[in-house]
Parts: sequence; structure tokens; C-alpha cells
Amino acid sequence: MALEPDDEVLATALLARQRRALAKAITLVESSRPDHRLRAQSLLDRLLPHTGKALRIGISGVPGVGKSTFIEAFGMYLLAQGLRVAVLAVDPSSPLTGGSILGDKTRMERLSQQENAYIRPSPARGALGGVGHQSREAMLVCEAAGFDVIIVETVGVGQSETAVASMCDVFLLLQLPNAGDELQGIKKGILELADIVVYNKADLDPRATAVAAGQMKAALHMLRPASPHWQMQVLQASASTGEGIPEVWAMLQSYRDTMQQAGAFDERRKHQAEAWMWHLVEAGLQERFRSHAAVRAALPQALQQVADGHASPATVATLLLDAFRP
Amino acid sequence: MALEPDDEVLATALLARQRRALAKAITLVESSRPDHRLRAQSLLDRLLPHTGKALRIGISGVPGVGKSTFIEAFGMYLLAQGLRVAVLAVDPSSPLTGGSILGDKTRMERLSQQENAYIRPSPARGALGGVGHQSREAMLVCEAAGFDVIIVETVGVGQSETAVASMCDVFLLLQLPNAGDELQGIKKGILELADIVVYNKADLDPRATAVAAGQMKAALHMLRPASPHWQMQVLQASASTGEGIPEVWAMLQSYRDTMQQAGAFDERRKHQAEAWMWHLVEAGLQERFRSHAAVRAALPQALQQVADGHASPATVATLLLDAFRP
Repeated sequence: MALEPDDEVLATALLARQRRALAKAITLVESSRPDHRLRAQSLLDRLLPHTGKALRIGISGVPGVGKSTFIEAFGMYLLAQGLRVAVLAVDPSSPLTGGSILGDKTRMERLSQQENAYIRPSPARGALGGVGHQSREAMLVCEAAGFDVIIVETVGVGQSETAVASMCDVFLLLQLPNAGDELQGIKKGILELADIVVYNKADLDPRATAVAAGQMKAALHMLRPASPHWQMQVLQASASTGEGIPEVWAMLQSYRDTMQQAGAFDERRKHQAEAWMWHLVEAGLQERFRSHAAVRAALPQALQQVADGHASPATVATLLLDAFRP
Repeated sequence: MALEPDDEVLATALLARQRRALAKAITLVESSRPDHRLRAQSLLDRLLPHTGKALRIGISGVPGVGKSTFIEAFGMYLLAQGLRVAVLAVDPSSPLTGGSILGDKTRMERLSQQENAYIRPSPARGALGGVGHQSREAMLVCEAAGFDVIIVETVGVGQSETAVASMCDVFLLLQLPNAGDELQGIKKGILELADIVVYNKADLDPRATAVAAGQMKAALHMLRPASPHWQMQVLQASASTGEGIPEVWAMLQSYRDTMQQAGAFDERRKHQAEAWMWHLVEAGLQERFRSHAAVRAALPQALQQVADGHASPATVATLLLDAFRP
């Protein structure tokens, strides 16, 4: 679909790195209105050739681990290196309270005031394609706007980590050297996604941090590495003193270099793009199926029969699939 | 679809608890031949009213934890209580070697020779609907053949545990009191599926077992319980001495009673049946999509464009979904 004249203006302004255009474009790709979805798609196709140059970093950790302060300190360090940094939040907000776990941009006050930083709070929920959709597209918009590093932040409660890992080049897990802390990350299978583990707040209790980091290293041999080219690394840092922050960035660069030399960096992105395409196909098929007139007509009785045990799930599935025939 | 005369004979023999009919029926439901699938479906519909009376127990644990010896000792104990026991293996065989991790029935020699026990080794791979399909249907066949307890055994490497937990009433995780053992179960998110954790081989090192079991109990408060009606329980047992085996069965009965009184037992089964139906619908949609002529024609170029970054995953997904229109 061709770009509308207004959106062509938007694309040009965005590529010229105008801040208002960036906010406007992200708002468009985050919208779930059908006409906005179409416009967003055309805009993204227009921007596609200008994407892909940033390093995409997923950062996760349970509440209390100090994600905001870490990302602020890390972001300020990157700015000092002359890099432009965007931070996007993926927040599986509680469906009960409607509240947001990762607050808004006021959390990172220093970083949000910087010219070369952009912080985007959590998008509204309930959009097509699940938790990853909006962040994935917002990430592409930021890349087109010339950001060098995109940080995708997620709260470590196990709902969105897989989505974030599947859109980022590298996944960084923040940990605290608490008792039982190993469990915090591990219990949700998050640790397996991590390429780099950083023990945060290392200044508060250096000895406990060293012990915890050592235990984590010892436990690593039990984990299958996510890539044959990279063994998970364990670091220590303190957002408040700034200690360890340059080492985290050095490790991330080392990760990128290693993976690029092995050809695995681009391979991972290709694989992610293909997997995402299939995810969208599945979501689209589901949507068409559930909105199909004959399926909708047959569904209530079909579900009742399965719930009552009067018909087997397989028989009912076949019946519904047959109803889906045009 | 009506049952073929031969299959009606098979159903009758199965309901009369004839052993050869049982093996034949399971072979039929495990087959992936399209004509066999149709016959299996009719057979299962015929058997459906006679299913649902068994307690369905999923048992998992990493290789070396002593699953076979535990299941044998546990099975022999159940037989002594006058119960009939079926053991089904769900084995995510290595796609590389084609080898089976859970060997065959020779592992449980004593149990396999008992009149009231039936042990079914891992089915062949590659069937429709993934790892859970065949075991789910084999389980129903065993229930129709009058077994009181169905044990679905899976190797604890994180690939099939979710499938097994989604077809069983209760999930039991075997652990060893080794150093780093907590990780074994936790790293794959398996622990969260467990309703009961049993430290096996407790006789080998009673003190280490008590310590490990105590640590596990202490860690439980960090886990969200799978059900509001049941808090995960930690037990100790020894398959070789028989110690703790009656307590495991008592705990399983306590689980069933508690869940039944709360109405959660049948609720879980209803939920499982509905989820399985949707899984089959999804698998069916995928299959129809991928075998659709226009989709097949468009797919190679579409995948190439995504891999090359020439088109966005969303644009290509829309294109393919449009091709799927009749």
C-alpha cells in the first residue's frame, strides 16, 4: 500500500531524526485501530531499508533488582560514548488492576532529559499479535530515527521475556545477590534466555555479590548455551557508583563481535524475522477462524460438548475445521 | 463416523479388558496413517463414555533420578492395593540420533510381568499434533480398558513436561538430593508444574535428602501455586527399600480428594479438554494453510524476502493470509 502524503512527511521527518516525528510514528504503530494498522504497515515498509543498524538489547530482572537505575546509568554511559539510546518498555500489566509494573518515563529522570536519549513507556495493552507486536515495531521506528542502541526493558515475571528475547540481539538479565536469588531468575526459565547476567548493586554487599556470582558461574555448566558461539557471562555492577558499567558495555560489544564473526548475528535476526512472520500468520489464521460465521455459529455447542465430555476434543476440532471451509 | 465392524469387535474386546485388544487399540491410535487416524477417532468416540475414571499421574525427573525403579516400586505397591496400573512413556527422542531416552519396557521387568499392569514404551515420533497426541489418546484407551491409575512418564528435559501436565490430573517431580539439584528441575520451569516433589533414593544419603527437601520447602514460598486449592508438597522415598512409597500414594489420594472437594478436579479436566481442542484446531489450521495451493506457491519467495530483509514480516504475513482466501 502506498504511503499517504501526511505519512510520507512523517517518514521524512523521522529519518531526519525529528523528535516529534518519532513520538508520532510510535503512537501510530502502537495503535490497534484497523486504519492505523494499515497506515503503520505502510510506514514500516517505507522505513525498513533504514532499520537494522542498532544493537538491540533486552534487559530483564524481577522488581526490586534496580532495572531503572541500571538502565539510566548504562544509558548515560552510552551517551558519553557518543551513542544515541532508545529505551522501550514491554510491560505485562496486571489484567486485574490495569496498573503498570514498569512505571513511566519519570523513573529515569536524568536520561529522559538528554537530547540523544528517548524513553518510551509501556504501550497500552490488548493489541493485535500480543505483547511483542508494538515493541517490535517501535524498535524499527527508533532504528530508522538513527538510534545506535535500543534497550527493550521487561519486568522479569516470565510473561514477556521470551517475546523480548525473540526480538533482541542479546538478552541481559539483572540479578541481586540475595538468598534464594538464583531461583528468582531460574524458576521462570528466564536464565536460559540470558546471554549475560549482571549482579546489580554490587557495592551494597561486595562479598555476597562475589559469592552469588561465583555460584552462578558454577551453575552455568548445567545450562545448555543458547548459542554454540557464546557462553553466558556473569558480571558485577553498581548503578549508583557506576562501577562495572563500562565492563557491561565492553561485554556486549564482545558479544556482538563474536556473534558477527561467526555469522550468527545476522542468522539470529533472520531466524527472528521468520519466526515472527509465522507468529503473525498463526494469529491471523486464529482471528479469521474465530470470526468466521459458520464457526461462530457452531462454537457454543461445540465447547459445551467438550466441557460435558459428550464429544472428544479431536472430533469437535474436526467439526469446527470443517465448518471453516468456505 | 460409524465404527467399522472389525473395530466394533476391537472396542468390545477392549472394554472386556482383553490385553491383546488393548495393545492393538493403542497401536491404532498411535498410527499417523490418515485412514488409521479416522478409524482411531471413531474408536475413541465409541470409548469416550467409558473413560475418565482413572487417576492420571504425570511423573518427570532428569535422567539418573531413578524414574524406572521408582515407577516399578510405586506400580507394584498399587497392584498390591488391588489397583490396575498402566504406564505410558512420552519420550522427546533426540532428533539427531533418533534414539529413545526412555528405553523400552525391559526397564521395568517385574512390573511388566504383572497381570494388572500394562507398560507401553514410547510411541514413534512425528505424529500429528505433537508430543502429546498419542499419549493422550493411549491414556483414554487404557481408561476404557479399566485401568485405575495411568502413569504418564516423561524425561525431565523440559520439552514434553508441559504437554504431560496438560493431560494429567497431578504432576509428580522426582528429584535427587545432589548439589545443584534444585537447578535440575527449576531451570526448565518444570518445578512450577509439579504438585508433588519426591526426593528419590532417600536411603543413600538420608541427611543430604533431608537438607535438600528442607531447602525445597523453604523455596516453595517463592513459587506461585499452580492451583489455589493445593500447595506443592515435598516427600522423600526410596524405590529400593520401598520406604516412603505408601506416603506418596496417600499424598496423591489426598490431592485428588482436596481437588475434588473444591470442584477443581473436574474443572481442570474440562479446561484440559478445551485447551486440547484449541490446540488441535490450531494444528489443523496450520496444516490447511501450509498445504493450500496458493500459499505453497507464494511461500518460497515470501520466506526469501523476509530473510533478506526486503519485506517486513507483517507485510509478508498479510500477503500469505490473503493468498489463503478461497
